[in-house]
Amino acid sequence: MTIGTEILLGHLVDTNSSEVARALADHGVDVYQMHSVGDNAARLEAVLRGALERADGVITTGGLGPTVDDLTKDAVASAVGTTLELHEPSLRAIEARFAALGRTTPLGENNRRQAILPRACVVLENPNGTAPGFVALRADGKFVACMPGVPRELRPMLKERLLPWLAGRFGLQDAIYTRTLHTVGIPESDLDARIEPLFRRLENPKIAVLAHDFRVDVKIMAKASDRAAADDLIAPVEAELRERIGRGIFGVDDERLEDALVRVLTQRGLTLATAESVTGGGISDTLVRVPGASKVFRGGIIAYDDSLKTSLLGVEETLLRAHGAVSAEVAEAMARGVRARLGTNLSIASTGIAGPSGASAEKPLGLVFLAIAHDDEVEVRRITFPGSRDDVRRRSIIAALNLLWRLLAKEETRPVPPT
Amino acid sequence: MTIGTEILLGHLVDTNSSEVARALADHGVDVYQMHSVGDNAARLEAVLRGALERADGVITTGGLGPTVDDLTKDAVASAVGTTLELHEPSLRAIEARFAALGRTTPLGENNRRQAILPRACVVLENPNGTAPGFVALRADGKFVACMPGVPRELRPMLKERLLPWLAGRFGLQDAIYTRTLHTVGIPESDLDARIEPLFRRLENPKIAVLAHDFRVDVKIMAKASDRAAADDLIAPVEAELRERIGRGIFGVDDERLEDALVRVLTQRGLTLATAESVTGGGISDTLVRVPGASKVFRGGIIAYDDSLKTSLLGVEETLLRAHGAVSAEVAEAMARGVRARLGTNLSIASTGIAGPSGASAEKPLGLVFLAIAHDDEVEVRRITFPGSRDDVRRRSIIAALNLLWRLLAKEETRPVPPT
Repeated sequence: MTIGTEILLGHLVDTNSSEVARALADHGVDVYQMHSVGDNAARLEAVLRGALERADGVITTGGLGPTVDDLTKDAVASAVGTTLELHEPSLRAIEARFAALGRTTPLGENNRRQAILPRACVVLENPNGTAPGFVALRADGKFVACMPGVPRELRPMLKERLLPWLAGRFGLQDAIYTRTLHTVGIPESDLDARIEPLFRRLENPKIAVLAHDFRVDVKIMAKASDRAAADDLIAPVEAELRERIGRGIFGVDDERLEDALVRVLTQRGLTLATAESVTGGGISDTLVRVPGASKVFRGGIIAYDDSLKTSLLGVEETLLRAHGAVSAEVAEAMARGVRARLGTNLSIASTGIAGPSGASAEKPLGLVFLAIAHDDEVEVRRITFPGSRDDVRRRSIIAALNLLWRLLAKEETRPVPPT
Repeated sequence: MTIGTEILLGHLVDTNSSEVARALADHGVDVYQMHSVGDNAARLEAVLRGALERADGVITTGGLGPTVDDLTKDAVASAVGTTLELHEPSLRAIEARFAALGRTTPLGENNRRQAILPRACVVLENPNGTAPGFVALRADGKFVACMPGVPRELRPMLKERLLPWLAGRFGLQDAIYTRTLHTVGIPESDLDARIEPLFRRLENPKIAVLAHDFRVDVKIMAKASDRAAADDLIAPVEAELRERIGRGIFGVDDERLEDALVRVLTQRGLTLATAESVTGGGISDTLVRVPGASKVFRGGIIAYDDSLKTSLLGVEETLLRAHGAVSAEVAEAMARGVRARLGTNLSIASTGIAGPSGASAEKPLGLVFLAIAHDDEVEVRRITFPGSRDDVRRRSIIAALNLLWRLLAKEETRPVPPT
């Protein structure tokens, strides 16, 4: 339950509920219902009483600020059948916090009130703010746990105070720890087929295949008492998956494709340049996000205007006239041109029609040619992307990086630095 | 009420509730409570019945997908005391939609079921998807309104179908209509001072000043029965604000700075090129997002590697050695170089230290030089941005576009196309 009128007014999007729900789901706790209520004592108490009829407990966030806390705490105390009293250790913690912050004036009434809690509650200390959280218990053993709404205070209190308390009381399940392998260049059905025997054999960890735009993830989910125990379960499964999937795996967990590309290009001592038209600098921009990109990415030419394809990239005018700027021939010439001019091992080129104008019967909206030049070779792909101008451009960028990864992953065509 | 198990699992953050709540608050409708429930018919119906005891109506989003829609619609029909039946016009709308998409196979059972609705409901047409929304009425006049959970389908249905229906039935209060003027280059305190007399005078519309990164918005909020009446109230206030604020205003409502730049450059027949180092293509990429950017943006050179600043932009090596790549002198030379090579009226250049490495005592992390060349002039700005690599790069891009806007806004230095 989230408490706060600003949520009911639509001024705030409630992200706390999904944060708490995800943590509970990881521990096998079923969430039946979520509520958001305003700073209104009567409605709050009614919702709490109703929820306690249906569930073993209620977790609330918000409503503990210095101006409204009495209201929330009164409603909670009343719903579990107790009263409020000053909690001396919390008062001393608040005083210590203010002293540490260099405040010398005596504690104000507002802050003093934050130490008033339901009688006999379990206090959830708040090292990141003044208001402590707490768990108030009803005579029948059902509970209401209240935590602050500020995510920075809520998150550590949830993980370090409330979940351990719930685990102690209800014997929560082991948590689920995950490791995600990211792949490109392998269709989902093909990936499924390669790992299907594992699917059937495994109980813990389990694996799941999740398809995204141009990327398929394989998620390994281990139930264990802690991260180290989970890692022991995950390691052999990851090894087997890597054997079955091979070089299609570009990274794990938070690693993005651009991170993996910069890592591998750095390892192999390869350099890269870009020649962009439809993507307008977006491929370069994506690569340059990666710290250390300067080791492999030298630069690029954005030849948005067709005349620049000739003047800056050396694409012959006859080629442009014969095939048009959006063609396999021009993409290839752009890739060759930028590689030669910038003296890199590899280059990526893009040309296409992002819309809303520029399409024709033979060249529909979303038509994009991507080219990668290396050694004496150029690989060209023709793709027609659905969607808006933004979609076409975004997908072109991802597809270009995918193409580069697949080239680097192929053992037989691995580009090498010139000797 | 949002319907969907993935919300209870914490896999999705519910943004629909705040969207609906905001629209209702604008019309003076009080939202007492929000719920999220899973795809579970019994619990759904119980929550609906409970909510209908406390409120005049319930608005739901989600749970209308082809696989689970029966469940939601059954629960709603039962809660208001009716049954389901095929709604022929909705079936024909779904068939027409598939025909327009070029599907020739007969409608599947899943899609056919989307046209089965509570008997005698008010249908909310869905021009953006297959599942229609609806309002089911109970005998006592209380209602349950159901809309799809996909924001792209929900948003127009809410604004164009449900709110007018609610207004007709309940005589909603005047709505609040807004118009937002975006400004750059004027500090918030200065803007406040310029418009302060208006603040005090105005009752309806009201105005508010909202500061963002590198942008200050002035929001005009009018209470009126419809958009046209609101526009009549807003127009004279907007005119007075424009007089007081002047050319710092770059756009209104959804217009982004890049949209405004492309619009003004197009109007004046000016062309633009970029020479990017620290921003790595991000300035170009931002401009190219705008449909029609090709009229003004010719292209750019990403000289990430210092040697390219010389070979592609003509920055003299002595300059690089004397001042370093991150210097006012090199930024100026980059801007001049790209303008000359690409033959544009204007150019923007960026060079800086985004981190995590590359900083020194004289040149701290976040130090960026931006330059704009036009005619025989170059304006250079030195800025030190706080934050991460991403922050520095993102802020550099916005600051560069700001600088260009401020240049275009100055009457006395307005660049003109060469005669």
